[in-house]
Amino acid sequence: MSRVIALSGGIGGAKLALGLAQVLPAEELIVVANTGDDFEHLGLSISPDIDTLTYTLAGLDNQALGWGRRDESWACMDALAALGGETWFRLGDRDLALHLERTQALRSGETLTAVTQRIAARLGVLATLLPMSNDPVRTRIRTPEGWLDFQHWFVREQCRPAVCEVAFQGVNEARANPALLAALRAKPRAIIICPSNPLISVEPILAVPGIREAIIGCGAPVIAVSPIIGGQAVKGPTARMLADLGTAPSAAAVALRYGALLTHYVMEHGDDATGISAAVSRAPTLMRTLEDKVALARAVLSLA
Amino acid sequence: MSRVIALSGGIGGAKLALGLAQVLPAEELIVVANTGDDFEHLGLSISPDIDTLTYTLAGLDNQALGWGRRDESWACMDALAALGGETWFRLGDRDLALHLERTQALRSGETLTAVTQRIAARLGVLATLLPMSNDPVRTRIRTPEGWLDFQHWFVREQCRPAVCEVAFQGVNEARANPALLAALRAKPRAIIICPSNPLISVEPILAVPGIREAIIGCGAPVIAVSPIIGGQAVKGPTARMLADLGTAPSAAAVALRYGALLTHYVMEHGDDATGISAAVSRAPTLMRTLEDKVALARAVLSLA
Repeated sequence: MSRVIALSGGIGGAKLALGLAQVLPAEELIVVANTGDDFEHLGLSISPDIDTLTYTLAGLDNQALGWGRRDESWACMDALAALGGETWFRLGDRDLALHLERTQALRSGETLTAVTQRIAARLGVLATLLPMSNDPVRTRIRTPEGWLDFQHWFVREQCRPAVCEVAFQGVNEARANPALLAALRAKPRAIIICPSNPLISVEPILAVPGIREAIIGCGAPVIAVSPIIGGQAVKGPTARMLADLGTAPSAAAVALRYGALLTHYVMEHGDDATGISAAVSRAPTLMRTLEDKVALARAVLSLA
Repeated sequence: MSRVIALSGGIGGAKLALGLAQVLPAEELIVVANTGDDFEHLGLSISPDIDTLTYTLAGLDNQALGWGRRDESWACMDALAALGGETWFRLGDRDLALHLERTQALRSGETLTAVTQRIAARLGVLATLLPMSNDPVRTRIRTPEGWLDFQHWFVREQCRPAVCEVAFQGVNEARANPALLAALRAKPRAIIICPSNPLISVEPILAVPGIREAIIGCGAPVIAVSPIIGGQAVKGPTARMLADLGTAPSAAAVALRYGALLTHYVMEHGDDATGISAAVSRAPTLMRTLEDKVALARAVLSLA
């Protein structure tokens, strides 16, 4: 058995992960989640990218909101608002159950990997979902007003402060997920970098000591899908962050950030590929429907 | 201003506390909550008696269930059950907000008193609500199978194991709530022991070092209301626990446990008062309606 290992952040990445899960036998797909977005809030351990992947792969994602669980209710947040509590990070009643269960599990000594897989399995996810590390890594954003925790910048401040620098606190001490390293040693068929934000979704994974080296060393093709179409991100602050950091946002700019790691780059028809050293493929990368996701997954896998 | 200080557990005590709150000006009523029932569950700091008092005094209590908040929903518990989580202690979606807010506050260094009063004020409670201590005291029940945390015995095991012994873990190190000690020094008009379970609701309060002495020393009448009518508890395991511990359950048996602390004892017409050294008064002690609660509160206050 030769496995496909997909590196993913939240929304955009999860769409391709769902496409891959439709196309590949479950035992052949490993989805690696960024945990740099994780944070502690209201005493709960929250892992937004793991949760988006879990809900998406389980068919429980809230497509109307673009985050959280479907068929959600907000009684707890409403009651918390009445108590004067912090409600800038909206936690639905059903979603809360996941955070309670994970927080409890982590506190009782279970690894993030174990509780992630246990919850995913309970919700019917068949593919293997792996956090990049069991150790805490926390993305922080330096703004003109100082450093902010990622979710404070992203959700509480709604990305208003300019981005001067991105850092992954704790990443040097974090140990790569042993299950990921084992999978990389077992001659995977391909590494797929999903169309997630390179700065805050993919680079935290690559920054965990040993992961980048293991990807290069495994010999499999490394295929990234552009998260930028026509100079704009489909969703989220990717283009804006690149611009803040001095790079004109483009599909090519993302490929250049990944550099020699890539063997293949999948981008939208018509986008400029100047300067990309990887083999460029063209495909429709905007994933609106399940058919779009499956088609893009097939296009990506055809390169492997 | 001369204050009335009421010592209370959950349901039965909260009924009389509500009656007192109807009769007394808000600034003259202090309700002291037992915290021996408190526990940590799903990573949350839960204070069942404080919460019952808060919801009851705020008019938000769930009268159908007899615990928790009114107009409650259970989406989080249902989702937690689907994840295989622990759902034996039912936390409603709205009730969860209170536990999240308190847990967060305690973790950030706020005292239990401060967060209790802040939440109560937010919900419209005008009387002063004080936990017996800001330090953790945990009631434990020794059963033939060993020691159980109180809520494990009470809720998870539904009181099935026989009670061999009751202990208040941490009570010797707990400091009495300074606001309670100050109120006891300020010549209160009366101390009222609400019709709560003596073994697990009132005695934990009296066991906190300094509280019993301050009550005796303050010189005010100490008026207890019997939680037993015709040999039975209105609600809860009081009669059963007394029997397990070798005492035939009766109103008089409760008065005897309080002993010389009491100056007055209010009991139902017809119940046997043999052996009670306090001055006995008779009143209807079953509180079904708000009018019942107010009438009993007036009867009790007439003794002060």
